[in-house]
Amino acid sequence: MEDTIELAKREFKDNPNLDKAIDLITNTGVKKRHIIQPIELASLHPGFGYRNAIFEYQSKRLVPGVIEEALGHADITAKNISAIIYVSCSGFLMPSLTAWLINKMGFPLDTVQIPISQMGCAAGGAAINRALDFIVAHPDSNVLIVSCEFCSLSYQPTDGDIGSLLSDGLFGDAITAAVVTAHSGNGLELQRNSSYLIPETDEWIRYAVKDTGFHFRLDKRVPGTMKPLAPVMTEFAHAHGWEIDKLDYYIIHAGGPRILDDLCKYLGVQREQFSFSRDTLVNCGNIASSVVFEAYRRMHESSLFKTGGKAIIAGFGPGIVAEMCLSQWR
Amino acid sequence: MEDTIELAKREFKDNPNLDKAIDLITNTGVKKRHIIQPIELASLHPGFGYRNAIFEYQSKRLVPGVIEEALGHADITAKNISAIIYVSCSGFLMPSLTAWLINKMGFPLDTVQIPISQMGCAAGGAAINRALDFIVAHPDSNVLIVSCEFCSLSYQPTDGDIGSLLSDGLFGDAITAAVVTAHSGNGLELQRNSSYLIPETDEWIRYAVKDTGFHFRLDKRVPGTMKPLAPVMTEFAHAHGWEIDKLDYYIIHAGGPRILDDLCKYLGVQREQFSFSRDTLVNCGNIASSVVFEAYRRMHESSLFKTGGKAIIAGFGPGIVAEMCLSQWR
Repeated sequence: MEDTIELAKREFKDNPNLDKAIDLITNTGVKKRHIIQPIELASLHPGFGYRNAIFEYQSKRLVPGVIEEALGHADITAKNISAIIYVSCSGFLMPSLTAWLINKMGFPLDTVQIPISQMGCAAGGAAINRALDFIVAHPDSNVLIVSCEFCSLSYQPTDGDIGSLLSDGLFGDAITAAVVTAHSGNGLELQRNSSYLIPETDEWIRYAVKDTGFHFRLDKRVPGTMKPLAPVMTEFAHAHGWEIDKLDYYIIHAGGPRILDDLCKYLGVQREQFSFSRDTLVNCGNIASSVVFEAYRRMHESSLFKTGGKAIIAGFGPGIVAEMCLSQWR
Repeated sequence: MEDTIELAKREFKDNPNLDKAIDLITNTGVKKRHIIQPIELASLHPGFGYRNAIFEYQSKRLVPGVIEEALGHADITAKNISAIIYVSCSGFLMPSLTAWLINKMGFPLDTVQIPISQMGCAAGGAAINRALDFIVAHPDSNVLIVSCEFCSLSYQPTDGDIGSLLSDGLFGDAITAAVVTAHSGNGLELQRNSSYLIPETDEWIRYAVKDTGFHFRLDKRVPGTMKPLAPVMTEFAHAHGWEIDKLDYYIIHAGGPRILDDLCKYLGVQREQFSFSRDTLVNCGNIASSVVFEAYRRMHESSLFKTGGKAIIAGFGPGIVAEMCLSQWR
């Protein structure tokens, strides 16, 4: 955080939005972020092509190790995987990294590839929901989810509006992976999924695509979207016979502090129930589609889960869309 | 074709690859292509940002009409759709056009969005396969597939290698849409799906991402990939109790003439069986993920389908991957 604010003061010293942006960045509560390059290089723009080359190089360097760890936790090998859902929005590869991973890591040649690059922060929830669908459609299968987010590669030094400056101080980089399996074991049993688009907000979170690559655009109305979303989440729980304010675990996308504060309030949930999402924000920044996996990992480390405990997973992102899943610990 | 060759002779007149490329383009058999801009503009490069703006503008202008037509054929309205699988590889929007479509066309707010941008030509087959999975996971649902391919927006005037010149003369633009439904009606009953990656070919069909956008790279070994793929397709049919050379309908990606000729030969299928894919190539060029839908449309127009008739749908694309589905006319 100190490095970020120091850099902002240096790079944007003549920008009239600077003080307001520093206030907003400070208020995010983000103390620490991990970024894929040293900040001295991350704050330069070597061109879209070079940035994408960094994206590819760093993905290939770092993703396999994260996958190995996830497979190890699930006690399976690459040979047991039926599908890979790969979500990532900060670079563009075709074919998706999944093709390289299948060759490199020994996944079966008939592994189904489901790469999703256009759902931003909501893609973590979307990946979980599509994994559940895949397993229902293909019984006995194992699905590997990989989220690779190098948000710092979308830093645009020429964008000095408040939304851009805030984003520059908010987003972090991360790679996460998870196994969703039809087989028994300790984990969240995914039971019901749903998606919801908040109407007429498709311009509120988006990329402006320019010669310099992806320019993140954040409308100031975004933090207010939890009010219309809360009744949708309440209804979703009802359809499953559950009360949204009586769940045991809330694995919620930490888009920013007000998203979390507002959602707590409108759902009628105690602030502490969102502490793992908040810890993710404080220690990693907004890591896009990786947030839900990192919040879940933190709950695991705290030995929080008890048999039968009820959970909601909810990712939010451009659309504006919510990807939600109800589950129980088994 | 005449316009293309005339343009190639003008723009690449000092290029030593020109004669060879013109031979290859002529041998594709492509007589006609539709492109989203007049050829005088399509052969200029106004920058990645402007190109992507054309992509967005033309998508919004043209996609809704194609969707209306598909919904009309299926005799349903936007309100009946549960999921939209949107495949497109020649521009990049975030959020995906699906968010705009839901607002614009009155799809339900809980429509599931599955945008796929990194599977290139294989994405048509992938969309069909993911639609089947979705319907198995969500009984009674209707899935809308949209393929929007403006391949001409990836034309790169500075790329003069043989693979690029061939691609410049091969690919066409198209928008197609289809409804996959759990409900009865006339259509192909999707029964079994599968994916297959040809090992160690992930560099053979790809985008090089540069400051000028997506540069299509085509390895000369690509046309030879049908030999290793044919036994995989044979085995896939066997697993369903079918003989690959005894099917009634072959809905095959028309990547180029040799792909079709080789696959016929290695599967032991008569050349005429691939005539609808070949007609698509001749009249539209390689229209990427739209090929399988256009070949299917042509079969429909010919009143080819008979109850119980067996079909294989197969899309091929970067990976190199095959997305295959077995079905029967009902």
